[in-house]
Amino acid sequence: MIIRPAGSADHEAIWEILEPVIRAGETYALRRDMSKAEGLAYWIAPDRETFVAERGSDILGTYYLRSNQAGGGAHIANCGYVTHPQAVGQGIARQMCEHSLLHALSQGYRAMQFNFVLASNVRAVRLWESLGFDTIGRIPEAFAHPGLGFVDALIMYRPL
Amino acid sequence: MIIRPAGSADHEAIWEILEPVIRAGETYALRRDMSKAEGLAYWIAPDRETFVAERGSDILGTYYLRSNQAGGGAHIANCGYVTHPQAVGQGIARQMCEHSLLHALSQGYRAMQFNFVLASNVRAVRLWESLGFDTIGRIPEAFAHPGLGFVDALIMYRPL
Repeated sequence: MIIRPAGSADHEAIWEILEPVIRAGETYALRRDMSKAEGLAYWIAPDRETFVAERGSDILGTYYLRSNQAGGGAHIANCGYVTHPQAVGQGIARQMCEHSLLHALSQGYRAMQFNFVLASNVRAVRLWESLGFDTIGRIPEAFAHPGLGFVDALIMYRPL
Repeated sequence: MIIRPAGSADHEAIWEILEPVIRAGETYALRRDMSKAEGLAYWIAPDRETFVAERGSDILGTYYLRSNQAGGGAHIANCGYVTHPQAVGQGIARQMCEHSLLHALSQGYRAMQFNFVLASNVRAVRLWESLGFDTIGRIPEAFAHPGLGFVDALIMYRPL
């Protein structure tokens, strides 16, 4: 598998990955009725770099990397990762995160922060912990989960 | 003093308040070289409501209120407040925050969250604590302060 910058030819494949996650509304704080144009505009915005994970001719995942804050806070990176529903459990998110940590370091970032990891997303929390992230904050009842009601969100962080 | 929604006639007064704070780069994670157009576009964006605090014909402060997250996270509000440099110490920020808490409640928000309160901004931390905010997270070395070097940022939260 290779991880490379996304190009405009990847938009269809990226939307195929994003749409089920947005529609499910179980992990990302995004409007569930976002259109394709809105979803892609969010994921591939001018303030971030977007990558795809590709095996053969299949796009198995995508992530973005941006500054979590501007100005005096621009040295901490932030990422979002999504794996293709048919590729979950193959370590794609782990490889994308490892790639993003190296890329962030190469761009001069000093740390990586996730602002909104749902406590109910146990798989993600375990993965980020195994990659060196600590939970530095917990937002009570931060997210209205369609199945679970209000769940907490974690703020996770690791130096680079 | 009254607190009311900002109109386009207030842009000059708002910029007069924002500019010194942006140029100083000591409290907000915004680019210090932001132009007037960029600064106003940030403060008066379509995703937020902007208010001014007015006494007689003087605008003494301004704040915005928005959803801190979209989708399943849209029930938590976020605000930014700035007081005119010549009106600091008169309780303007406190009155704006009290106004914002009531307004957020009236809009159906369930909580208020500040994502980036600098630990070095002792006056602000004390004020938010006195208004019922708890520190729910601390981001190590989150901000490059022009005088103090890297300082931590606090995540503060209160239910409504």
